[in-house]
Amino acid sequence: MTHETLGSNAEAGTSVGLVATQNVRLFDEERPLVLESGETLAPVDVAYETYGELNAERSNAIVFCHALTGDAHAAGHHGGPKTEGWWDSMIGPGKPVDTRRYFVVCSNLLGGCSGSTGPSSTDPATGKPYGLRFPHFSVRDLVEVQRALLRKLGVEKLYAGVGGSLGGMQILQWVLDHPGEMRNALLICASSRLTPENIAFSSVARNSIMRDVNFQNGDYYGTGREPDSGLAVARMLAHITYLSGEALETKFGRERRQAQEPSPTFGIDFQIESYLDHQGEKFLKRFDANTYLYLSRVMDYFDPFADENAVVEGLRQSSTRFLVVSFDTDWRFSTSHSLEIARVLERAGCDFVREEIASPWGHDSFLLPVPAYHQLVCDFLAGKH
Amino acid sequence: MTHETLGSNAEAGTSVGLVATQNVRLFDEERPLVLESGETLAPVDVAYETYGELNAERSNAIVFCHALTGDAHAAGHHGGPKTEGWWDSMIGPGKPVDTRRYFVVCSNLLGGCSGSTGPSSTDPATGKPYGLRFPHFSVRDLVEVQRALLRKLGVEKLYAGVGGSLGGMQILQWVLDHPGEMRNALLICASSRLTPENIAFSSVARNSIMRDVNFQNGDYYGTGREPDSGLAVARMLAHITYLSGEALETKFGRERRQAQEPSPTFGIDFQIESYLDHQGEKFLKRFDANTYLYLSRVMDYFDPFADENAVVEGLRQSSTRFLVVSFDTDWRFSTSHSLEIARVLERAGCDFVREEIASPWGHDSFLLPVPAYHQLVCDFLAGKH
Repeated sequence: MTHETLGSNAEAGTSVGLVATQNVRLFDEERPLVLESGETLAPVDVAYETYGELNAERSNAIVFCHALTGDAHAAGHHGGPKTEGWWDSMIGPGKPVDTRRYFVVCSNLLGGCSGSTGPSSTDPATGKPYGLRFPHFSVRDLVEVQRALLRKLGVEKLYAGVGGSLGGMQILQWVLDHPGEMRNALLICASSRLTPENIAFSSVARNSIMRDVNFQNGDYYGTGREPDSGLAVARMLAHITYLSGEALETKFGRERRQAQEPSPTFGIDFQIESYLDHQGEKFLKRFDANTYLYLSRVMDYFDPFADENAVVEGLRQSSTRFLVVSFDTDWRFSTSHSLEIARVLERAGCDFVREEIASPWGHDSFLLPVPAYHQLVCDFLAGKH
Repeated sequence: MTHETLGSNAEAGTSVGLVATQNVRLFDEERPLVLESGETLAPVDVAYETYGELNAERSNAIVFCHALTGDAHAAGHHGGPKTEGWWDSMIGPGKPVDTRRYFVVCSNLLGGCSGSTGPSSTDPATGKPYGLRFPHFSVRDLVEVQRALLRKLGVEKLYAGVGGSLGGMQILQWVLDHPGEMRNALLICASSRLTPENIAFSSVARNSIMRDVNFQNGDYYGTGREPDSGLAVARMLAHITYLSGEALETKFGRERRQAQEPSPTFGIDFQIESYLDHQGEKFLKRFDANTYLYLSRVMDYFDPFADENAVVEGLRQSSTRFLVVSFDTDWRFSTSHSLEIARVLERAGCDFVREEIASPWGHDSFLLPVPAYHQLVCDFLAGKH
């Protein structure tokens, strides 16, 4: 592996082009998934995509872990317009994660609703969708399912793992549980422990879903009545926290939809309202309310540094290099979350780089081609830090 | 009027004791309320309370304007335990607004649900509750109704007006519309113009209410099905914005309701969830969803400095002294809102004091007996600044 820089103009890269999501059964009745809780689950199918080629030494694999509402489709496109992957700016030939060099794997998380087994999947015990009978799982379980996928693909060791938000939380857990497995860990606006304010926002979102009369205790599948109102409101709320106040000011200000001063209304009048409404509606088409409950709750309970001394001891065995990135206007997982991770890495004598990137776009910045950020990822992967 | 200080130990004051809310008809079919929009409304009843005595010169009246979810019951108690007024720490004998000296008036706002005419009142045209047929109104209309009440009580000029949040917005509008009427204006964590983030939070709250299937386009009265879920979620969301992240950390941290580690659940597990749930439920008992829509929307549209040059000219006629207070951890109406008000007061050459008070409790601070803040109010009213 050579560690050349990928050039300063990282955004000049091209797309990986047309890609397809694949599906694989990783666990079945004979060999079920054993969760951290001790519960078992089978079958477990996983939807995934790969970009680039695994080299002969099997040393160039990079796993991408998605955030709360992501899926396996991180890069390239699915044929139609507007079908680009959610992190297409980051992954591709000549992009910060260069697919001419790396073999990239991204899968839909356990509990997801985009091809992987989750609460909308059929429970073999009943022949009906699991709903809330789907077992609770942890970030550790999310990692183990992805490890099983990688083994299936012939990958034992990772050149790197990359994740933003919940994605970064998975990368952190991965290194803690398997110190020798990941050479480079990129934790982008991640957290080792949600604040009560973080939990509060998620709790209100879940309340919005679960109090919707169409929620039917999670058994809404096939009834023709889904908790769309609750899920849309949850998404609208989340979107406020994904952007900074500054970003909302720049994007929308107090602009109205109609230039003429209309009568006051409770409907959509300000542009910011139109934006939130659009985000809520769009989300309903692609996301399942129960998955929202499970994956947001996983984040609330995540607390890998609870036994900090043990964690520090474990990390001393690790030769992983860490990149810990935050954005100055991110108030969902502000820099203080990254500082807490860095504090523990420092205690353990780990090799790490921590950077706060200036970007007006809040938490959403991690998905955007912010030049200094992309350059940092590019340089870090090339071993330049 | 002498301007002695009320002593440094402002919180040592006592309660005004048992008080009762009164009700008065201010506008009727013959003399209806003419709104800023040109629409008329009648009858208009107003619920109000008074504390202290109006002096012979009628020069010691102070009006208190309430915030989004307040009512007429600002001070004293209603007999039972936990019936203290919402600003009892501020108003009373020996308190910052000393009722041995001042005559205090507080009324439930137009559009309210605690005794004043609002969307839950009977529309004389139909014999049924107005619901969303209640006319839209403005902060200016809120002020005019309160002025009508004061005239009824024999008050033409005010020694002071005091308000926090939406209350402060009313005080600001009052001075702009009636420059000679208020000697001292106390604007506490107020705003002259909501940001898109402010509007976004209110919009999500309104969406939560209006998308509730029991909302029935506002005609839920008497149907036995009220938009309780939507209103509770709106309140839970609002409560996150009333407190600072620091306050949530101090009050709740990541504490669980049960000391033993229970299985993960989507129900109430963390203490912060219990708090929010309690706030949501408590709110349903005292508040009307339609009032929430009207009063939150009034705030979104408030923009008194839109024609800034005219405002500056008008303010030059005013001899009002202003106190503009914000709290350092308030992120609902942060200090930047107060700075914007102060900027315009400065341009107009007004006599004003602007202070940012250190308090960990966020927006809620304005209702709490923060010593430096209470002393400031006390001193300002005594003419010491």
